Amino acid sequence: MFRSENEFVHWLQKSVPWQGSRVRLGIGDDAALVRVKRGHELILTTDMSIEGAHFLRRLHPPRSVGHRALARSLSDIAAMGGTPRYALVSLALSKGTGRRWVEELYAGMFALARRSGVAVIGGDTAVVSGHTMIDVLVAGEAPRGKALRRSGARPGDALWVSGRLGLSALGLRLLKSRARRRARGAAGAIRAHLYPEPQGALGRFLAENRLATALMDLSDGLSTDLARLCEASGVGARVWAERLPRPNVPDPEESLELALHGGEEYQLLFTVRPHKVSRIPPRFRGLPLRQIGEIQRSKGLQLVERGGKLRPLEPAGWDYFRKN
Amino acid sequence: MFRSENEFVHWLQKSVPWQGSRVRLGIGDDAALVRVKRGHELILTTDMSIEGAHFLRRLHPPRSVGHRALARSLSDIAAMGGTPRYALVSLALSKGTGRRWVEELYAGMFALARRSGVAVIGGDTAVVSGHTMIDVLVAGEAPRGKALRRSGARPGDALWVSGRLGLSALGLRLLKSRARRRARGAAGAIRAHLYPEPQGALGRFLAENRLATALMDLSDGLSTDLARLCEASGVGARVWAERLPRPNVPDPEESLELALHGGEEYQLLFTVRPHKVSRIPPRFRGLPLRQIGEIQRSKGLQLVERGGKLRPLEPAGWDYFRKN
Repeated sequence: MFRSENEFVHWLQKSVPWQGSRVRLGIGDDAALVRVKRGHELILTTDMSIEGAHFLRRLHPPRSVGHRALARSLSDIAAMGGTPRYALVSLALSKGTGRRWVEELYAGMFALARRSGVAVIGGDTAVVSGHTMIDVLVAGEAPRGKALRRSGARPGDALWVSGRLGLSALGLRLLKSRARRRARGAAGAIRAHLYPEPQGALGRFLAENRLATALMDLSDGLSTDLARLCEASGVGARVWAERLPRPNVPDPEESLELALHGGEEYQLLFTVRPHKVSRIPPRFRGLPLRQIGEIQRSKGLQLVERGGKLRPLEPAGWDYFRKN
Repeated sequence: MFRSENEFVHWLQKSVPWQGSRVRLGIGDDAALVRVKRGHELILTTDMSIEGAHFLRRLHPPRSVGHRALARSLSDIAAMGGTPRYALVSLALSKGTGRRWVEELYAGMFALARRSGVAVIGGDTAVVSGHTMIDVLVAGEAPRGKALRRSGARPGDALWVSGRLGLSALGLRLLKSRARRRARGAAGAIRAHLYPEPQGALGRFLAENRLATALMDLSDGLSTDLARLCEASGVGARVWAERLPRPNVPDPEESLELALHGGEEYQLLFTVRPHKVSRIPPRFRGLPLRQIGEIQRSKGLQLVERGGKLRPLEPAGWDYFRKN
């Protein structure tokens, strides 16, 4: 392990990727100092990744832990239609963790940061007796007035998602089962779980072209996150079960359940005024986009099943207060 | 306890103080959206407060835990000479914590935030099986080019501190001892420990008037933090034991040790070019300022004892990697 905080900070200063000219002062001082582009607003978000809850040592390699910890926050910036710029990483490290594990964690984080144009400019560190916990703050920018919120959905809007739902949750199930891990298509789902891609470019495309009325990311599962979008907008929604881009598993019940409630997806959920629907491409840079329902005036969520039968859709994704 | 994350977020939205017109979007969306003043740079800092390390349930009332968690980050902004604007709070809450404890924690944080002009605009929450952990991110601003770093000290500069050193460490000792808790002056030290004041106004005064060459806050103790300032500046320093503003305790050894190594002080340490020393007032808004030594070319720290005897001063403040 690192022998002192100073040694750790020195290692970190040497290891961070190039920071760009707008970072005036990075790791090693009391705080970081950066510039925000003129005419832009600042977007701030923070997300925790906790051992035992968000990751397990026996299932998640440290590189994936680092990738996912940063991806959570990047996805929040994507969900505003912004561009991520800076990250601060607070790491409470479980006593006895090896130096190699820490280096791999940062390697996973730095690789994603580099690809996303994000400079890691600071943070805090401690060694703790309990589980490892990582809190990642990302600061991003959006042109003034362009950032998209969850609260703009209106009755009649079309409800869209990117990508395939439930893949990450399926990947976690496969990781946990030796037998199923070798099934066809397992590698893709496992990869979606270990190295999810935040959809920054799509978020910016929707925001800058004013194509969406509301935008958010799917981190806790469609049923939970759609309920939040609807609550923030003061509307309800109808989801067409048949249109959901589900994972490819033999059991159709499992497939539907994964698509409705699987979390840590980092796909985007957005609403579109009817007259703008024709401007949403079926694919954006290879990522399929699909209408899965519509926003309605009456509150609550409904699932439209095959044959048109309606049933209430209850939020059943991840909630820390409920699970504990 | 809160029954769901939604219930917690709603409670938080209702409870946060007024946010100011530059907060475009606060708690409840994917991320927060704020404005940065034109011609200003953005200062970002994050600090963790961990149960068992930074606070103990039996000694620290939740109001103090909340106050101190925010004070740590505010002090980092003060140490750059900036103005704090926004805070994000990540809270990993130990399972079984009562709702009242959480409400008091936020009350302590909100009271300090209000006094400091800081809007609490977001964060993350989880319930964990281990200890409670709070990570507070603060974003601040400084006029472009005015923020002060640790790296500007030059040989010949005068070394100054604000306030009295070692009071917080003494307060912790008193809190731990039933007998000493009733000693004369105990209440002041205990208060300094439970509710330390970040020195934002002094930091801005030094930065805006270009009075200091280097500035940092004393969070880990003078011996540790001065070593960091010297390392960042590529210099050494001499500290005059006689001039240290020490806590008032019967044993002079204990008093010196507290002043040299006691942490969580949040007083400011700064260096001043000789020709500017006359412009440093003996008190700033009631807070005593005092020269305690000087910066020298030769590396390392030396303590000048009564009678002029020199001895090496080793960093002996708080370091997580060493303590564990």
